[in-house]
Amino acid sequence: MNVDFDVMMDACPTRQVLGRIADKWTMLVVLALDDGTLRFSQLRARIRGVTQKMLTQTLRGLERDGMVSREVYPTVPVTVEYTLTPLGRSLGDAVTVIRNWAYGNMLQIEAARERYDTAQS
Amino acid sequence: MNVDFDVMMDACPTRQVLGRIADKWTMLVVLALDDGTLRFSQLRARIRGVTQKMLTQTLRGLERDGMVSREVYPTVPVTVEYTLTPLGRSLGDAVTVIRNWAYGNMLQIEAARERYDTAQS
Repeated sequence: MNVDFDVMMDACPTRQVLGRIADKWTMLVVLALDDGTLRFSQLRARIRGVTQKMLTQTLRGLERDGMVSREVYPTVPVTVEYTLTPLGRSLGDAVTVIRNWAYGNMLQIEAARERYDTAQS
Repeated sequence: MNVDFDVMMDACPTRQVLGRIADKWTMLVVLALDDGTLRFSQLRARIRGVTQKMLTQTLRGLERDGMVSREVYPTVPVTVEYTLTPLGRSLGDAVTVIRNWAYGNMLQIEAARERYDTAQS
């Protein structure tokens, strides 16, 4: 691990990468593809609430960063498949830790919100 | 872990929590406070580039979700200290995994970007 990086510095390249990863749609796409290759339409059906535009943008960013590979098959209409690269799969492991944290602590968070909102009102 | 949650469903409460966590400023505040209690001004100095407004909003959200506790001391001017709760510290562990992933893979990501941008031009 390169210890010269410091995400607290706004000029550090890792700050920009954190900004990319720390994005709801990026995390959801990585989690969805962590289960295997999917076509665009399948991804869109799996991630409820994502718009075509957001999904396109998110996939393009992940492809540029080397986390997703895109395979085009010359069918009619054209078939496009998305797969996590080894780099993307390693990010998938890290994002799974975040998702499992949310699953495991959801009830505690809801209880905290109720306490906070009651104290404010 | 409650297995009835599914972050892929937009109506699942964990989707909203993921949206909260999957935020650059939230992650940076949690990482900064993971090293110990800080005053508002110290947090602002530590997290380069954060505005007063973004920091205030982020801290309020984390306090509401039970991840940060806020202590006010009646000095002149008033001193406000922020500390991670046990729930916040457990999120800190998960966010540290993401940060370390960024530190460890930054060079690979930069190389992928160069390849992508060259292929597009």
